[in-house]
Amino acid sequence: MARVLTPRAEDFPRWYQDLISKAQLADNGPVRGTMVIRPVGWAIWERMQADMDVRIKEEGVQNAYFPLFIPESYLRREADHVEGFSPELAVVTHAGGKQLAEPLVVRPTSETVIGEFMAKWVDSYRDLPLLLNQWANVVRWELRPRTFLRTTEFLWQEGHDAHATEELARDHARNIHKNVYQAFMEELLAIPVVPGRKTKGERFAGATNTMTVEAMMGDTKALQMGTSHELGQNFAKAFDITYSSKEGSVEHAWTTSWGTSTRMMGGLIMVHGDDNGLRLPPRLAPIQVQIMVVKAGEGVVEAAGKLRDELKAAGVRVKLDDRADIPFGRRAVDAELQGIPIRIEVGPRDLANGSVTIARRIDGSKTPTPLADVTGAVTSALKADQQRMYDDALAFREANTVEVKTLDEAIEAAQTGWARVPWSAVGEEGEKVANGKAVTVRCLARPDGEMPDSDDEPGLVAYLARSY
Amino acid sequence: MARVLTPRAEDFPRWYQDLISKAQLADNGPVRGTMVIRPVGWAIWERMQADMDVRIKEEGVQNAYFPLFIPESYLRREADHVEGFSPELAVVTHAGGKQLAEPLVVRPTSETVIGEFMAKWVDSYRDLPLLLNQWANVVRWELRPRTFLRTTEFLWQEGHDAHATEELARDHARNIHKNVYQAFMEELLAIPVVPGRKTKGERFAGATNTMTVEAMMGDTKALQMGTSHELGQNFAKAFDITYSSKEGSVEHAWTTSWGTSTRMMGGLIMVHGDDNGLRLPPRLAPIQVQIMVVKAGEGVVEAAGKLRDELKAAGVRVKLDDRADIPFGRRAVDAELQGIPIRIEVGPRDLANGSVTIARRIDGSKTPTPLADVTGAVTSALKADQQRMYDDALAFREANTVEVKTLDEAIEAAQTGWARVPWSAVGEEGEKVANGKAVTVRCLARPDGEMPDSDDEPGLVAYLARSY
Repeated sequence: MARVLTPRAEDFPRWYQDLISKAQLADNGPVRGTMVIRPVGWAIWERMQADMDVRIKEEGVQNAYFPLFIPESYLRREADHVEGFSPELAVVTHAGGKQLAEPLVVRPTSETVIGEFMAKWVDSYRDLPLLLNQWANVVRWELRPRTFLRTTEFLWQEGHDAHATEELARDHARNIHKNVYQAFMEELLAIPVVPGRKTKGERFAGATNTMTVEAMMGDTKALQMGTSHELGQNFAKAFDITYSSKEGSVEHAWTTSWGTSTRMMGGLIMVHGDDNGLRLPPRLAPIQVQIMVVKAGEGVVEAAGKLRDELKAAGVRVKLDDRADIPFGRRAVDAELQGIPIRIEVGPRDLANGSVTIARRIDGSKTPTPLADVTGAVTSALKADQQRMYDDALAFREANTVEVKTLDEAIEAAQTGWARVPWSAVGEEGEKVANGKAVTVRCLARPDGEMPDSDDEPGLVAYLARSY
Repeated sequence: MARVLTPRAEDFPRWYQDLISKAQLADNGPVRGTMVIRPVGWAIWERMQADMDVRIKEEGVQNAYFPLFIPESYLRREADHVEGFSPELAVVTHAGGKQLAEPLVVRPTSETVIGEFMAKWVDSYRDLPLLLNQWANVVRWELRPRTFLRTTEFLWQEGHDAHATEELARDHARNIHKNVYQAFMEELLAIPVVPGRKTKGERFAGATNTMTVEAMMGDTKALQMGTSHELGQNFAKAFDITYSSKEGSVEHAWTTSWGTSTRMMGGLIMVHGDDNGLRLPPRLAPIQVQIMVVKAGEGVVEAAGKLRDELKAAGVRVKLDDRADIPFGRRAVDAELQGIPIRIEVGPRDLANGSVTIARRIDGSKTPTPLADVTGAVTSALKADQQRMYDDALAFREANTVEVKTLDEAIEAAQTGWARVPWSAVGEEGEKVANGKAVTVRCLARPDGEMPDSDDEPGLVAYLARSY
C-alpha cells in the first residue's frame, strides 16, 4: 500500500499533524492557534461528551452555563489565579462601537465567575453541596500551538463545586477523578492512565492540590488527560462563598474544580494511531462498521443494504458506502485513516459464494465470512478489539516504564520512556534539575496506585517523563 | 395561594423577569447583557438541543466546530454583512500581553469563517451538497438586553451549507425550515408557528431571502423563533466557494444558513407560562413527574420510592422529592414555578386508603388515584397535556388574530393582537408607516400557509404585529 502518512518512527510530530489533516479531523483556524474541528473529528468529540456527561450526572452534578466574558477585576481577586493566567488572556476592549469602561477577559476558565454566583446561591448548609458543570469554549493565548494539544481556543467541561467541609470537597474531587475521568478514559477511550498528585510546582493557579491522570503516548511521552483541583477556601474567601451551618455559625465553603478538554482528542490519536491512520476504540467510534460496496454487480448493493439493516437492528453503528464510482482502494484508505474499527467488503465474487470479507482495523486482518455469520462475527470482534486496544496500550506503557532508584537514572530513563522512582530520591530540588533537562514529574502516586493525601507521605513514587 | 409572581395582566415584562428569577432558570451575568443559565433552565435547553440535533442530522447535516475569533477583515468581504453587524461587534485588541496586529472579532455568526473553509473543502460537484451545523456561543452587543430574548452572548445552532444550484439550496433551506424548525416547535415545544417570508427590510444581512417562524406570545406580541436564509451566491463570491461541474466548468456555489437560539427559551416561557410560573410541555420537560412526600409517615417514603421505580420503568422522567423537612407548600410552589407537568402527592392519609393525588400543572386539577392506576393515569395525562398545550396556544393565537383589508385596520388590530392583511394593501411604503407605529410586518405567507417564492407573488398575506 502506498505511504499515506509520514511514518511514526520517522517523525512523530509530523505524523500527528499529517494524520489530523488527512483523516479530516481538524484544520488550523484563520487566527493562529485556533482550530476548525471537522465533521469526522467532531463526531468523535460528540461521543466523548455524551458518554462523559452521563458519568458526570451520575455523580449528582448538574449542568449550567456561565458567560464567556469576565470583568478583568474578577481575576484579580485571587492572587495566584491572576498570576497564573495573566500572560494567556485575550481581552475585549471595544464593543458596540465604543471603548469599554472596564476591559473584559475572554474566560480562560470560569472559577471566578462561578465563585461569584456560588456566593449568591449558597446561603445555608442545605444548599450544599452545590455541584455544577459546564461544557464550554475557553481561551488561553498559546505561543506554541499544536492542534488539539495546545490551542488558543479549546473546548472542555469544567466542573465546579462547593462543599461544607474540606473532607467532603476532597472526597468529591476524588470520586470525579476516579469514577468519571479514569473510568471514562479506560473504558471508553481504551487508554490506561496513571492517577496521581501533581507536585507543588505543577499545581493549578490557586489550588491547594491538583490531581491528574497521565497517559503514555506512542512516542513514550506523557500527556495530562484531565485534572481535578482542590481549591481549599481560596476562592470561597476571594468571592465570599459562605453558608450558615446547622449550628448557626457562618463558614466559608470548600471548593473544587475539574476539567477535561479537546486535548483528549490528541491523546486518542497519539495512543492508538498507527502508520495507516487513526484507530478508534469500538465503543467510542461514531461509525463502528463501514459496509463497502467493492464494485457494482448483481445484487451487491441490495446485499450491502440488507447487511446494514441487520447490523443496525443488532445495535451496531453502521454506515453504507456504496460510492462505486470512487475507486475502492481510495475509500478503503480513507476508512483506515479515520480509524473505523471494521470494514465489511461486499463484492460480486465473494457474494457469489455467499460471503463477504470482514477487515479489522486493529490488525489489518481480513476474514471471508458467510453472510449468515456476519452479525455475530462483528459484534464479538467489536468487543474483543475494544479490550485488545486497552491491553496493547497498557503493555506498551509497561514495556516503556523503568523502575529506578536515583534521580540520574530517572532522568536518563525518561529520555526514552517513563521512569518510576522514589519521590524521596527526587524532591523539589531534584525536580528542578529534571526540569532543566526537559523532564517533568508527571505525578506522585502511592505504590498501590491509590491517591496520596499529601506530597510528604512516605513511600511515594514519582513518575518522570518528557511530556506534551 | 400566596401571590408568587407579578400577574401577567398587571405587568407582562415584569412577570417574565420574575418567573425567570423565581423558577431559577437564569440570572444576569456580571457583564451587562450576559446571562447565567442555571441548572433548571439549562436542563430544558439541553433537551431542546438533543431533540433538534436528531432532526438536523435526519436532514443529512453533519456537526462541526469553527473558531470563536474571526479576523476583522473577513467580515468586510461581504458588504451587506459587515454593515449589518458593525454596531454589534465585540473586538479583542490585546492578547498574550500584547496588542494584536489585526483586531479579532468575537463571532456574531460564522458565515464568513465557514465560507472561508467551504472554499477549501469544496472542489468538485461530488463535494456538494456540503451540509454543516454547529452548536456555539455568539456575541452581539445589546443596548437593551432582556434575558433569553436579547442577550449580548447567546447560544445557538447555526447551519451552513453549499449547493450546486439555486434550486437545491432553496429546497434544503425550506426542508430545514419545515421539517426541523416548524416540526420541532410544534411537536416538542407545543408552540404553533406561522412560517413565512421576511420582507426586504427585515432580511438578514447578506441574504437574498429570509424565512421565519413566528409565534404569538401570551401578551399577543410576536416572537421570531427561528430563521433560514438563502444567501444566493453572495458569500460564495466573497469567499470564492467554487466547484467544477460534471461538465467541467467552474461555478460558484449557492449557500444557505439557518439558526435558532436560546431565544426559544423566552418564547417557551411567554407562550406557556401562567401566573403561577412556567408550564412545560411534557415531551420537553426534563422532569415530567415529581413524586412528593407530603409528610413523613408509616410507609410513605417506601411507597413513593416504589412509584418512582414503576414510572421510571414505564419510560417516564421522574424525580422523587422526599425532603419532608421542608414545608410541602413551599416545595409545591417551586414545582409549579418550574413547570413540572405532574406532581404526585404521597401522604399518610391517602396512602391509608391505597391512593395518592395526581396534580396536573396544566390546569391545577387534583385527582385522587388508586396506586395501581397511577402509571396508566400518568402516561395518558402526559400525552393529553402535550396536545392540549398546543391546542390552547393555537386557540389563543386564533382568538387574537384579526383578518382585515386595509393598512389602517391592520395597524389598529396590531395594537392588541395580530393582523392578517393582504400584502398588496401594505407594500414597502405601508411597512414604513407601520414601523413608525411600532408595528412590523412579521412575515408574508400564502393563504394556504405554504412558503412564497417571492415578495411579489400575487395574493400574499402579511402578518402585522408588535414584537420582541
